[in-house]
Amino acid sequence: MKKLGVAILGLGVVGSGTYKILTENKEYFKVKEGLDITVESVLEINKARIEALGIEKSKVAKNIEEVVSNRNVDVVVEVMGGVTFAKDFVLSALSSGKTVVTSNKELVAKYWPELEQTAKKKNVGFFYEASSVGGVPVIRTLIESMQGNHITSISGIINGTTNYILTQMTDNGWSYEDALKEAQKLGFAEANPTADVEGFDATYKISILSSLAFNKKISIENIYREGITNLKEKDIKFAKKLGYVIKILGIGKDTKNGIEVRVHPTLVKNDSALANVKGSFNAVKIEGDSVGEITLTGRGAGSMPTASAVVSDVIFAGKHSEFYYQPFNVEKQKPVKYVKDFTSKYFVRLESKLNNSEVNKLEKIFGKKIVINKIVKEESEKLDIVILTELASEKQMLKALDKIKALKDLTVENLIRVED
Amino acid sequence: MKKLGVAILGLGVVGSGTYKILTENKEYFKVKEGLDITVESVLEINKARIEALGIEKSKVAKNIEEVVSNRNVDVVVEVMGGVTFAKDFVLSALSSGKTVVTSNKELVAKYWPELEQTAKKKNVGFFYEASSVGGVPVIRTLIESMQGNHITSISGIINGTTNYILTQMTDNGWSYEDALKEAQKLGFAEANPTADVEGFDATYKISILSSLAFNKKISIENIYREGITNLKEKDIKFAKKLGYVIKILGIGKDTKNGIEVRVHPTLVKNDSALANVKGSFNAVKIEGDSVGEITLTGRGAGSMPTASAVVSDVIFAGKHSEFYYQPFNVEKQKPVKYVKDFTSKYFVRLESKLNNSEVNKLEKIFGKKIVINKIVKEESEKLDIVILTELASEKQMLKALDKIKALKDLTVENLIRVED
Repeated sequence: MKKLGVAILGLGVVGSGTYKILTENKEYFKVKEGLDITVESVLEINKARIEALGIEKSKVAKNIEEVVSNRNVDVVVEVMGGVTFAKDFVLSALSSGKTVVTSNKELVAKYWPELEQTAKKKNVGFFYEASSVGGVPVIRTLIESMQGNHITSISGIINGTTNYILTQMTDNGWSYEDALKEAQKLGFAEANPTADVEGFDATYKISILSSLAFNKKISIENIYREGITNLKEKDIKFAKKLGYVIKILGIGKDTKNGIEVRVHPTLVKNDSALANVKGSFNAVKIEGDSVGEITLTGRGAGSMPTASAVVSDVIFAGKHSEFYYQPFNVEKQKPVKYVKDFTSKYFVRLESKLNNSEVNKLEKIFGKKIVINKIVKEESEKLDIVILTELASEKQMLKALDKIKALKDLTVENLIRVED
Repeated sequence: MKKLGVAILGLGVVGSGTYKILTENKEYFKVKEGLDITVESVLEINKARIEALGIEKSKVAKNIEEVVSNRNVDVVVEVMGGVTFAKDFVLSALSSGKTVVTSNKELVAKYWPELEQTAKKKNVGFFYEASSVGGVPVIRTLIESMQGNHITSISGIINGTTNYILTQMTDNGWSYEDALKEAQKLGFAEANPTADVEGFDATYKISILSSLAFNKKISIENIYREGITNLKEKDIKFAKKLGYVIKILGIGKDTKNGIEVRVHPTLVKNDSALANVKGSFNAVKIEGDSVGEITLTGRGAGSMPTASAVVSDVIFAGKHSEFYYQPFNVEKQKPVKYVKDFTSKYFVRLESKLNNSEVNKLEKIFGKKIVINKIVKEESEKLDIVILTELASEKQMLKALDKIKALKDLTVENLIRVED
């Protein structure tokens, strides 16, 4: 039987989950996969974590050199996070002829070409299913199940923390602040929630997913990013009134004019599949020219779901001896289209004092190029005005908003994009 | 560059789709997959189909021997359907050392072990992603993405024809007969719709999927099967009233007492993910002990979606040189649990004449072991009675129904299982 030695760098939530699955299922994997998998080495500075898992001392490496020089190690699993050490360690492992499996989205999004070149030089594997949308097998689906397609779009709910927060705001009427606090209490959000709530995490993931979908390296600098920190209860309320739910989506589209990739709060129809993906669940919709629309739903984060994806890569690497690298220049490289150029429907929320005659100027300001589909007005101490537009250019929309901002008694409270 | 020669047996909807994808994307596959794929041979008796695709005469084989003795052919794609010729042809191809890709669910469900043994003996591949749920990559997900899981259940909408019919009955109030006629007109249903509407097609698919999920060969004789031909508009109407939608599901569960696999109409909550899978779309929900719940949605049939799955297998076979066969004896073989033993909630629809005192006997007949959760009565010319029960044993439910049937003025109109 083929032996497969594994090293795990980092025994945090994903690392411990991976260790547990690999050790508890040793016999199952022998019979089912024909692989005798052993965790040969771990690297972790927190001794309590090592003890909690009952790992024998002989398997605890002192440093990365000890791991990568270990002849029994075939696959190095990097689940430390961050990029400083992780990058060095992964390069070191690849250079030593070890296949690498990583869950590190930031690492892949930022240093993918360099890492793959090293892997290619050494003819070893570089796998990263766990880096995007945790246990949901989106990457394997893109690479091994949709080969007969040109993919035209990939979009979805790819961050569980923000989806949890938005679900609480939508279904239970919580404020952003209260929902964030609860998410932190439940361990869904970090003490410093910036990476999630400002959309960085989703940006790394959509960078990876759209690069795979469109066969081009789409770097994070070319992705429009907007988080959920500016969303107010009134946005949720008026969206609901209009038959929509607000989700933060990662969106990648391959259009005639180029590729556009963005992360931002988005109104989706309340009977759509994405609207009903709640709490910490994730969902990704992929459009291919042969297969049409495929949607994958599941847990995008958490110890065991992410470890499930890591183990899937370990076993895949153990069973298939040919390794492939992403050919990021399949078609003539198209320019990445920036957000200012794209086209969208919009939800615009304004506030004005009551009986403000400036309100009558709105239609003229939007002009002929931005067609208003619906307008809702509601009076309380102030006048709330919510406008839903037809497809319009982002550039023209921002221009119109500048004009509105110049009006004296009318304020622009929010601008949110709409995907029907 | 690696060359890959393909033969296609049968140029019907799936075969022509496969031919188109393979030929139109030749250059794309060279750059993206590193494979130079050529359709070297086709076998098809209908000349019009060959002409429609513009296939040169030199590539049209006279018989299966010519195909399997062709040294340029590495992969034989069987998309003929049926089992008589298909089985002989597939065995012949495997015996000649060709890898086989098939979309034939009946063939796989009935002759899987024999076909795989032949493939194993010759060290060639046997692939069948397209056999179950068309373009939705359920099989690749089970084999290559969920290895780190013990799968506890797999269920879903796995037949597009019946889902189209049920969607029309539910959303538009059509009768079964009208919906079937429309499905036939649109090409979703065959002139003889038995395979779909009586659940045979779904039985083949859930046989394949649950065999993979539970690592045991679950033959179709061990699967409880019930079609949709007995569903009446009143069933749909009362289900709706109670907050449910009726779908025909394939269900496989690995329980403490054994494995149960069944295909039957099922009430699902109207806000569940499955309830919102409409028309000819399919969806499969898989539960694994590490990853939790994964749901895959997409087109389960049709020329291009199914061809997309076929091409995915062809390319997978071309890129990975190790072939694996299903180890159907991973754990001590558990007995397959038959339908009479399983536990379910139930929807029971009865009719009686008005003011029938026998109605009062119902609670007593159900007894203590079948707890009634809800009872709805509606008077028109007759009295409609609909009962929703808590979990109960199928055996006891059938016993109770026998007692009810013995009552003079009360008829049992339908019994439908409920999955919450």
